[in-house]
Amino acid sequence: MRHIDEDTITQAVIARHGAAGDARLREVMTSLVQHLHAFAREVRLSEDECARGLRFIDDCVRAGGGGRRELALLSGALGLSALVAAMERRGAQVGTEGTASVLWPADAAAAGTGAEPCFVRGRVRSADGGALVGAQVQVRPSGIAGPAVTLHTDADGAFLARCALAQPQALVGDGPVARLLEALGRAPWRPAHLHFTIEAPGHEPLHTQVFRQGDPQLDSDALFGVRRSLLADWVRHAPGPTPDGGHSELPFTTLDFAFVLNATRGDKT
Amino acid sequence: MRHIDEDTITQAVIARHGAAGDARLREVMTSLVQHLHAFAREVRLSEDECARGLRFIDDCVRAGGGGRRELALLSGALGLSALVAAMERRGAQVGTEGTASVLWPADAAAAGTGAEPCFVRGRVRSADGGALVGAQVQVRPSGIAGPAVTLHTDADGAFLARCALAQPQALVGDGPVARLLEALGRAPWRPAHLHFTIEAPGHEPLHTQVFRQGDPQLDSDALFGVRRSLLADWVRHAPGPTPDGGHSELPFTTLDFAFVLNATRGDKT
Repeated sequence: MRHIDEDTITQAVIARHGAAGDARLREVMTSLVQHLHAFAREVRLSEDECARGLRFIDDCVRAGGGGRRELALLSGALGLSALVAAMERRGAQVGTEGTASVLWPADAAAAGTGAEPCFVRGRVRSADGGALVGAQVQVRPSGIAGPAVTLHTDADGAFLARCALAQPQALVGDGPVARLLEALGRAPWRPAHLHFTIEAPGHEPLHTQVFRQGDPQLDSDALFGVRRSLLADWVRHAPGPTPDGGHSELPFTTLDFAFVLNATRGDKT
Repeated sequence: MRHIDEDTITQAVIARHGAAGDARLREVMTSLVQHLHAFAREVRLSEDECARGLRFIDDCVRAGGGGRRELALLSGALGLSALVAAMERRGAQVGTEGTASVLWPADAAAAGTGAEPCFVRGRVRSADGGALVGAQVQVRPSGIAGPAVTLHTDADGAFLARCALAQPQALVGDGPVARLLEALGRAPWRPAHLHFTIEAPGHEPLHTQVFRQGDPQLDSDALFGVRRSLLADWVRHAPGPTPDGGHSELPFTTLDFAFVLNATRGDKT
């Protein structure tokens, strides 16, 4: 280890953990070190830049106090969350496309209060087509303050949720990730969407987001969460009778979406 | 952006910052995203593993409260600090090998108190061979609690520093990085060394570390800081007269080292 230089450091680091008991940890760390070093070599990373990078990460975590989860936002902004979600999905799955719940910051929004109501008519079934009765559904519109709406599917696997109309969602404006996006000339916005978390016994929990067909911001989602299969027609109605048997004095929106849950896998590895 | 999958996400992310005003930032982030994604693809990183990785980084920063600078320790343990220091050096430098001050945690030690004294006879000159008179020298032995010794070179560019004998240094034992090293089967130790920071007008500050020739731990430095050019003979003496004209009732150590500072560069890029 006394001859370490730019060309030998990578192998020196990897050799150190050659005897690690956890084979997966060894595999992940070997690849991580190789790619981290390849990045530093490729851009000839200076000491100053490396130090700035570490400070940026430090800033992210410190900004994350209070539940803003800035690191999750960073993972989203760099496309890592979308990548791992896509790889996770590339199995034998047929259900609704999900987004990794742990990687999507729940509250990265400058939330306002919604005025116009939105009615979601959902259906939840398993991959074999059977209706899932009594599944728990949580709905949360983007850009709106307040708790999620929680309800359960009926005997047909259907639910009707009433919430505020989702709004475009700004990443927290004063955080390190928002500042990075600004420096990169990137839009710090997410298009309006509805978060859904659906759970039913014997099935994988589904965390997903439903977007509005035709939304002009679909192509600039700062967190790369939009998927074609997750677009729905959000139909705007004039004031009048609403799907829940009530009446709205404001215009309101309805949308229909069918969710498919995969059966629990025995072993996720 | 509605067709994003495992194969298209990387280009989608990079395309977003194509118009960034800062060309260097664009270059660095492009490379970073490519290598980050290549790593995730290579190991088929799962969502759970990605979330664990983010939590680990979060833990590092939170553990870093109180100046332990756990992220700098992580950068050292993964060999990134050594790599950028080596690249920084691959210029037209002839001076003493340095170690990136900002990247080396100053206090990642379970520090004890030293009993045996150590005398460092140093010489400081510029790359053209001239003695540097009045240069400020700070010396700090590893594994020893207390402030650095600060002094200045004399009319011959020489100094004599008395400090406690440096001890092997353990990375902070309860921190995330120490736990990672343990999981990787890696030794969480640094061999005994002396930190030097030397500053003289018109010269680049030198941050470096001097190790003990023959130390059995030279090949297992957890932070990859050992360099052949930074080894010195640490000579142990029986109790008796010391180089500063005094007397030691304990055995004591002497070492000689010549430092060469590079002239200030006009532009570090």
